[in-house]
Amino acid sequence: MRAALEEAGWPARVLVACSGGPDSLALAAAVAHYARRGAVRGKGGGSHPLEAGAVVVDHQLQEGSGEVARATAHVLAGLGLSPVRVVTVEVQQAGEGPEAAARIARHEALAAEAEASGAGAVLLGHTLDDQAEQVLLGIARGSGPRALGAMRRVRGLLLRPFLGLRRADTLDVCVAEGLDPWFDPTNEDPRFMRSRVRSAIMPFLEAELGPGVAEGLARTAALLGADADWLDEEARRTYAGLAEFGSSDTEVTPGGGEVTLPIDALRALPPALRGRVLALAVTDLGGQTTFERLGAVERLLERRGSAGPVEVPGHVSAYRAAQGRLVLVSHR
Amino acid sequence: MRAALEEAGWPARVLVACSGGPDSLALAAAVAHYARRGAVRGKGGGSHPLEAGAVVVDHQLQEGSGEVARATAHVLAGLGLSPVRVVTVEVQQAGEGPEAAARIARHEALAAEAEASGAGAVLLGHTLDDQAEQVLLGIARGSGPRALGAMRRVRGLLLRPFLGLRRADTLDVCVAEGLDPWFDPTNEDPRFMRSRVRSAIMPFLEAELGPGVAEGLARTAALLGADADWLDEEARRTYAGLAEFGSSDTEVTPGGGEVTLPIDALRALPPALRGRVLALAVTDLGGQTTFERLGAVERLLERRGSAGPVEVPGHVSAYRAAQGRLVLVSHR
Repeated sequence: MRAALEEAGWPARVLVACSGGPDSLALAAAVAHYARRGAVRGKGGGSHPLEAGAVVVDHQLQEGSGEVARATAHVLAGLGLSPVRVVTVEVQQAGEGPEAAARIARHEALAAEAEASGAGAVLLGHTLDDQAEQVLLGIARGSGPRALGAMRRVRGLLLRPFLGLRRADTLDVCVAEGLDPWFDPTNEDPRFMRSRVRSAIMPFLEAELGPGVAEGLARTAALLGADADWLDEEARRTYAGLAEFGSSDTEVTPGGGEVTLPIDALRALPPALRGRVLALAVTDLGGQTTFERLGAVERLLERRGSAGPVEVPGHVSAYRAAQGRLVLVSHR
Repeated sequence: MRAALEEAGWPARVLVACSGGPDSLALAAAVAHYARRGAVRGKGGGSHPLEAGAVVVDHQLQEGSGEVARATAHVLAGLGLSPVRVVTVEVQQAGEGPEAAARIARHEALAAEAEASGAGAVLLGHTLDDQAEQVLLGIARGSGPRALGAMRRVRGLLLRPFLGLRRADTLDVCVAEGLDPWFDPTNEDPRFMRSRVRSAIMPFLEAELGPGVAEGLARTAALLGADADWLDEEARRTYAGLAEFGSSDTEVTPGGGEVTLPIDALRALPPALRGRVLALAVTDLGGQTTFERLGAVERLLERRGSAGPVEVPGHVSAYRAAQGRLVLVSHR
């Protein structure tokens, strides 16, 4: 907890995002403990003032969700957190699936609440187990390094003080504090891949490979996260230096209709950067990057002369043009 | 097969490393097919001469291993491969476990055979399933990105033409060619973690997460491999620019008793490089890098003044010294 607050620059006012589940309820109890004292002591000994409120997001995706939210808010207020707010969100069912849509709606609501209450951070209850499950999911899907280096302890407004804690520990905290957490039935619903990972796959892996699997996955995530951060940054720098933006009617706008990249320079890049630079061009034009389609674009670099177009989802196509240029065009 | 040979620069003479198992036996059959014709046709249409021999390595770790090796050699000669050699190796039981020791002995023997027969490449039968299993093992162990981006299609002398193929496909090839592969009983032995991954964990994951898991893991390996290549290269460059080598008796030798690094420069590095540079210093001195101990060395950079030493396995210690230097010393 202290390490996360220190990394975030000791925000004087924070909000806990609490679902009522064991992880975020334990987090709320821990934060409330400091807030009741009015301060947190840093490792170096200094004292840092702390006020803490809480937000319960009602996603309205399950029957009775409003009741769970109100009951949770009541418990949070009893812990001394103030203000405690219940926020109702409408989850837009977009193309990314219900879980992603709920997350987007939740994060928007949390950012708005933080702004409204002047909070410098929003604390989330993710644990080492969530981290491990996310890595496992990403790996099984063949996701890239960015998805694998999953959650960071501090990311913008979001703080995750419990990323080093096991889920079982948060339940212990709840029991010790006399709190009665809510158990989300969808966590056990085998229709959701994440639930299968949590309730079936992780226990199986721990039984087969030994008890260190979750820690191993979390460690992997930490290492890959640092790598992905820097590679993405380098790729953005390289892309900014190489890309020429334009459109067929000569209007020059980044994110516009056309991106041109010099083929020789792309060829000279290490593969780790080349793939990322091409992905940036595709997403800049509103396209979606898939491993297979990005590979097809990359193969355009192998020879000389004009060739293509290679189609990419999201109405983007790429072709090899005269004067050693790779051109990507949006057809929206 | 053709893509791998092309990537290796069309070696005119190759050796197939064959255990007699379905993967490497199918590979031997495929290579023999081209060798009987005397040439492989490239994608561009050009014809590339090819001669192929085979090596069967007898690790002498199982009873009857010599018999399996001789029977396999007989089958390989029947396919028209020439020369076919059985090489007996002694596996030194080192600290890295029996599997690693066997691999080291095997690779040494294969390199010697390639040299003796003038072969430009040694072909190995690893499939997409091996790749997937290796990634899963590495992840579960919390290995770094290097271990995860596991096997490359071309690495030095070694070629793995079947990395895109499923193991089941290689068995189909054997059946179609009328070959009777040998099934290594240790692949089913639950005392080996790799066997448990193969025979229990992967089938369970495919059942729970869907049939694309192995492909997903292999894709992850490909992406991480490219990243790790470049990050390692950048780290080596950075390390070479920063490190000063020496020893307490002023003898200046790389790999000697002492490595000094400037703390400010280390602090300024992105975490992805900083960890790798510190790891290079530790391994340069004969130490072993663990996630936890490397983290302890890195924490020495956080403050000013002298501090330490931090001990690293392999008789290396690190401390913060005057004039903003981090010093690593070997105590062998």
